[in-house]
Amino acid sequence: MERLLSDEQRIDWLRLIMSENVGPATFRTLINRFGGAAQALAALPDLYRRGGLTGRHRIYSREAALQDIERSEALGARFVAIGEAGYPPLLRQIYKAPILLCMKGNPAVLELPAAAIVGARSASALGLKFTRQIAAALGAAGFLVVSGLARGIDTAAHQAALPHATAAVLAGGIDSIYPPENAALHAAIGERGVLVSEQVPGMVPLAKHFPQRNRIIAGLSLGVVVVEAALRSGSLITARYAIEQHREVFAVPGSPLDARAAGTNRLIQEGAQLVGRVEDVVEGLSELLRRPSPPAEVFMQDPFDHAIAAGGHPEVPLELHERLFALIGAAPVGVDDLIAETGAPARLVVAALLELELAGRIQRLASHQVVLAE
Amino acid sequence: MERLLSDEQRIDWLRLIMSENVGPATFRTLINRFGGAAQALAALPDLYRRGGLTGRHRIYSREAALQDIERSEALGARFVAIGEAGYPPLLRQIYKAPILLCMKGNPAVLELPAAAIVGARSASALGLKFTRQIAAALGAAGFLVVSGLARGIDTAAHQAALPHATAAVLAGGIDSIYPPENAALHAAIGERGVLVSEQVPGMVPLAKHFPQRNRIIAGLSLGVVVVEAALRSGSLITARYAIEQHREVFAVPGSPLDARAAGTNRLIQEGAQLVGRVEDVVEGLSELLRRPSPPAEVFMQDPFDHAIAAGGHPEVPLELHERLFALIGAAPVGVDDLIAETGAPARLVVAALLELELAGRIQRLASHQVVLAE
Repeated sequence: MERLLSDEQRIDWLRLIMSENVGPATFRTLINRFGGAAQALAALPDLYRRGGLTGRHRIYSREAALQDIERSEALGARFVAIGEAGYPPLLRQIYKAPILLCMKGNPAVLELPAAAIVGARSASALGLKFTRQIAAALGAAGFLVVSGLARGIDTAAHQAALPHATAAVLAGGIDSIYPPENAALHAAIGERGVLVSEQVPGMVPLAKHFPQRNRIIAGLSLGVVVVEAALRSGSLITARYAIEQHREVFAVPGSPLDARAAGTNRLIQEGAQLVGRVEDVVEGLSELLRRPSPPAEVFMQDPFDHAIAAGGHPEVPLELHERLFALIGAAPVGVDDLIAETGAPARLVVAALLELELAGRIQRLASHQVVLAE
Repeated sequence: MERLLSDEQRIDWLRLIMSENVGPATFRTLINRFGGAAQALAALPDLYRRGGLTGRHRIYSREAALQDIERSEALGARFVAIGEAGYPPLLRQIYKAPILLCMKGNPAVLELPAAAIVGARSASALGLKFTRQIAAALGAAGFLVVSGLARGIDTAAHQAALPHATAAVLAGGIDSIYPPENAALHAAIGERGVLVSEQVPGMVPLAKHFPQRNRIIAGLSLGVVVVEAALRSGSLITARYAIEQHREVFAVPGSPLDARAAGTNRLIQEGAQLVGRVEDVVEGLSELLRRPSPPAEVFMQDPFDHAIAAGGHPEVPLELHERLFALIGAAPVGVDDLIAETGAPARLVVAALLELELAGRIQRLASHQVVLAE
């Protein structure tokens, strides 16, 4: 599993993951199918075209990738690929684990067991105080405190954990400082803790990056503590990821008449552990540490590939794409159902779906399903 | 089950339940064994003596009982015995159900399905506000709101439910007004709602009466809503009774940094339903109403009597009392174990235990166990 990329490979990996409509799952499929990132990059123009992508499409240039790597080095950061030493092992286990992480700081802290603390930006004084108590206690107990460097709960968690160990997962690039008043905290975490980003340096965070970032916060952590969270908040998205990733969720209750408690109270109703005292978190997480860890997912294994025989990517008759596309709607449909419905060989169906996905026309979901792209 | 006592029987029942060391469970045993309250009263002096009660013992006088009944009538109240029409059916099902209840007000409200709302005397403004919302919603949904007329949450619950239906269970006699500022509320509930007391009129509430009262609050109700409660509070005692009585417990969460939420948060950790919205209570209780009700316990059935053949109360060799007493300690011991240990006939052991209990030397617990009296 100690996959050490050559410099050239790292450039190709960065190019491939940054290319249009390539995400972590597509990346794995392409690598499996074409034998490497360089070969997949060479195949991309044809795959886009066959999938029906019209107009311009972006294949990330070698120059851009080189610049990203140089810029990260200038910032004191580095790109670590999934499977390499230094890539957080818990994160590797999640669905759509990031292919490359840009990281800066003290890598030793990532060897500690991690717990996330997330919550409302407009937090109450009590919420902030309790956050600091939890973060300090987790730090003192030997946990890495993970959060998102946002205003409010996130900031309080990082500040209280900084004397121990803390990691900030950024929605934008490793050098994107937000909110501006956290510039000093950002710098301090980059020295004594760890900054983590899935984006390239210089990337300004877009709306879609925040939920992607939240999946990393949960993925790094044995458990997620939600301190104050309204319904439909980013913190609840992090909690959902934690549930999907089979991580523990802890929620701090609050008055039903305080909107900031609506999300955490709901989580408790749905099965999250109620945090009545700081010790509930520390003891709950320490208990998890004593359990045997689940078997790690094998890198590069992908459910999408279940029907693919060896032999690379097949040439798909173009009419199959449109037959499949007509069968796919806004509701998820199973890949097996599509195979049955079309009567086409499984390896052709799966190949056509990959091409449709690369063309941005469909999205794959966990558990062998696809939907129309949003 | 429509046991209608004659005036004389009611006097004897009141005398028996008010006599020294006679509680609801002992009362049942005595009635079963001697065939009626009058016969049990006649046997009491001998039973006290045989159990080892030294010094004075109080058998409640006929004059005192008559005075209680006259006084209750003068107050517009009346004594209702277990098994009689007007005795709340859910209350009849609990362990140690009250033998006689003194009640005043509108008996029709007791035919509504009931829900208790209890909580801290020193409640927060938010807690009081949420209490009023829950009480008004329960009242509007056709529930009788039961509470204890204490300061704080109880008062808010009664006030908000008064336009609909509310019952106040008093720790002292039906005419004991506490706290004094609730005199008008006490009077209003005595007119439009129902006042309930297990004590005789004029009884000033003693410390031991409060947990006894709390068992009635829970016993009247399909479920108990705890709004704010510290650890070791009376509201938690009510919740424990509700759990013992297989009633639903709802708890309103709060900040871990507010001591008034420590009890409710703990209840949720132990399995109580979290109240995140008023609707959670109304819907939860309405759901209970749709379930078939559990079979009612048969009146006068008592586990203590399991080994008693017909034929009344046997003459127990006096040395058995001391052998048994030596075997009973501060930790509960099973009646079956005592039978095995002494090798004495079960009917003699059970009779001796009754006498020891009447003498105030031991206490019986639920599920066939006894301990030393406190």
